[in-house]
Amino acid sequence: MEGQKCLGISKGDLDTPCLVIDEEVLEQNIRVMQAHVKNFGKQLRPHAKTHKCSQIAGRQMAAGCVGICVAKVSEAEVLVEKGFREILITSPLGADSKIQRFLDCVARAPELMGVVDSPAGACRLNEAGEGRSQPINVLVDLDPGMGRTGIPFQEALDLGIHIHRLPSLRLRGVQCYAGHVQHIPSFQEREKTSLDWMHQAADIFHKFRESGLPGEIFTGSGTGTFDIDCRIPELTDLQTGSYTLMDAEYLNIGSSLDPFRFVQFPPALTLLTTVISANHPDFVTVDAGLKALYHHGATPTVIQPPGSSLTYEWWGDEHGRIRTNQGGRKPMVGEVIELAVSHCDPTVNLFDSFHIIRDGILTDIWPIDMRGRCQ
Amino acid sequence: MEGQKCLGISKGDLDTPCLVIDEEVLEQNIRVMQAHVKNFGKQLRPHAKTHKCSQIAGRQMAAGCVGICVAKVSEAEVLVEKGFREILITSPLGADSKIQRFLDCVARAPELMGVVDSPAGACRLNEAGEGRSQPINVLVDLDPGMGRTGIPFQEALDLGIHIHRLPSLRLRGVQCYAGHVQHIPSFQEREKTSLDWMHQAADIFHKFRESGLPGEIFTGSGTGTFDIDCRIPELTDLQTGSYTLMDAEYLNIGSSLDPFRFVQFPPALTLLTTVISANHPDFVTVDAGLKALYHHGATPTVIQPPGSSLTYEWWGDEHGRIRTNQGGRKPMVGEVIELAVSHCDPTVNLFDSFHIIRDGILTDIWPIDMRGRCQ
Repeated sequence: MEGQKCLGISKGDLDTPCLVIDEEVLEQNIRVMQAHVKNFGKQLRPHAKTHKCSQIAGRQMAAGCVGICVAKVSEAEVLVEKGFREILITSPLGADSKIQRFLDCVARAPELMGVVDSPAGACRLNEAGEGRSQPINVLVDLDPGMGRTGIPFQEALDLGIHIHRLPSLRLRGVQCYAGHVQHIPSFQEREKTSLDWMHQAADIFHKFRESGLPGEIFTGSGTGTFDIDCRIPELTDLQTGSYTLMDAEYLNIGSSLDPFRFVQFPPALTLLTTVISANHPDFVTVDAGLKALYHHGATPTVIQPPGSSLTYEWWGDEHGRIRTNQGGRKPMVGEVIELAVSHCDPTVNLFDSFHIIRDGILTDIWPIDMRGRCQ
Repeated sequence: MEGQKCLGISKGDLDTPCLVIDEEVLEQNIRVMQAHVKNFGKQLRPHAKTHKCSQIAGRQMAAGCVGICVAKVSEAEVLVEKGFREILITSPLGADSKIQRFLDCVARAPELMGVVDSPAGACRLNEAGEGRSQPINVLVDLDPGMGRTGIPFQEALDLGIHIHRLPSLRLRGVQCYAGHVQHIPSFQEREKTSLDWMHQAADIFHKFRESGLPGEIFTGSGTGTFDIDCRIPELTDLQTGSYTLMDAEYLNIGSSLDPFRFVQFPPALTLLTTVISANHPDFVTVDAGLKALYHHGATPTVIQPPGSSLTYEWWGDEHGRIRTNQGGRKPMVGEVIELAVSHCDPTVNLFDSFHIIRDGILTDIWPIDMRGRCQ
């Protein structure tokens, strides 16, 4: 579907494979999360790496968010270009060329923040920032036992003291994101594990303040622990991302309300796919494979036709297989199937736009303007 | 890296993650495959779904290919726009909207061919094509026991006769692509399986000719069976795709020259990634995760630094882990690692451009102009 020329057509007439967003569900999810953090006296700093769409980030800011998180500098470049200012890049930078791109963003958006997870990384950023009129905002990235990025807890205070002495940097606080905890299926186990790590991070945050270091910000958490980590008094803001769109991976874990389903945020994002071959009694072939549904996380689940016993299986780069189970009706060639997507973040990154649906009608097309921005 | 402004810089100075192509290896792979099929009296109709790049397709045509294959209509639209005419879309179409897009391509490129795998599909295409001045070129898509697309062998002749009677369609021959055979690790087993299916397809092709049906084209095969299927006398052209770029998935299967390695086509495509965190003794974190290296097929393998014992592991959407094994040197923050990619087709589909390298220097940037074209 090109441009805006198709607005007003029915969802079922969209060319496939394509991503669609139910605008009412998206608005509800944004509203529910915002009310939740407000209820706990927290702020929201949602992660845009999930949706990669500045129009959704704009709606999140309009709902009252304190800022937007991105994973990479190239994503921040898009948001800066669109006029966003309160941006946090949640990964350390690496190469000198990346530090330069980061500083080019800071020149246009001085409020932009980065994270640092080593004394050497702090020194490199400090040197690169010499001669600037304003210091660069940074957080100490804490490692909650995952080892991916972040400094181990026991070395964090020393890093904070080190950064505080560097003239080009302005220490604002800490980040602690426990990515390995978010999808633990059992809510009780997730709760125990997350609280354990986040309490340790809170201790570091206390030590920062006791040592006279700036401790304005303690940012972290994700959709899987949104109603767990808010019980940590020291946490100032949550970095939840997937709650906007949701996916089969999150929907299939337990929550505080249901031991087997994550029910607080219904899926706003789905994928439409069309049957292209139906020469066999028990299955048909659809036009969405690895390149349209990222092969990671839970298997996509059939939402439309509703109540059906149809199941999806990946079947190569270009195709999927829809099995008819329990003697159910077999879809026909040309029929459209709607799926809750597998892992939403990398699946969104496969497409250029979201098709926005309200009451079954296409009302808008939003560019996924941070798609492919992995640098 | 934006636009052409960085041409002339060293490969190691490219911002990461990014895809690079060694132009000499690419040219060699194109040349070797072309010479191979010529040696067997065949033609080459390479699949562009691997590289999704019209500049590579142009080089393939310049080398003597008879046409270019694509998987989807939206890919064909790009090639038609670029002036390509001999295009084969290797998947059946499905929805009416897709048939219309297909016919819009045919209007500009009457040589374009589609495939049909059911009598109903043939009738729909025939009706949609009524009133056109020229008939639509089609092949019968044969199912080599995989069931994904294609008509079972025993029904194929009847479908051919059916199509031959339809006034808007012009039957050209058959397609038989055994996707499930291409990555069988043992060369001998792959050889036996592929020859079995392709001989059966050849029998159908004979029956077409014996029945007075047009039998100009018998197209099929892939990189994994490039030196197997060419022994089928009836096969007119090969649809190999991955041989251009190659990936860890293909490199790790046996070949006619080595029981454990596919040695005929070295990897022209690699991915550069940078160390961003190094707080642990046995591993470092790099900036390429699920969104830069598609999590499918074989694990990416470290090519640079050469001879190292480093191994790559996926570590979430944005990051990877490089393990130092056997006490090898640990890479430093900012250091660039070069990897043979996992499954090349979906990995290429994550990026907007290839960085073309000759003698270690960036000589060009080629848009991956069919990226995201999964419709």
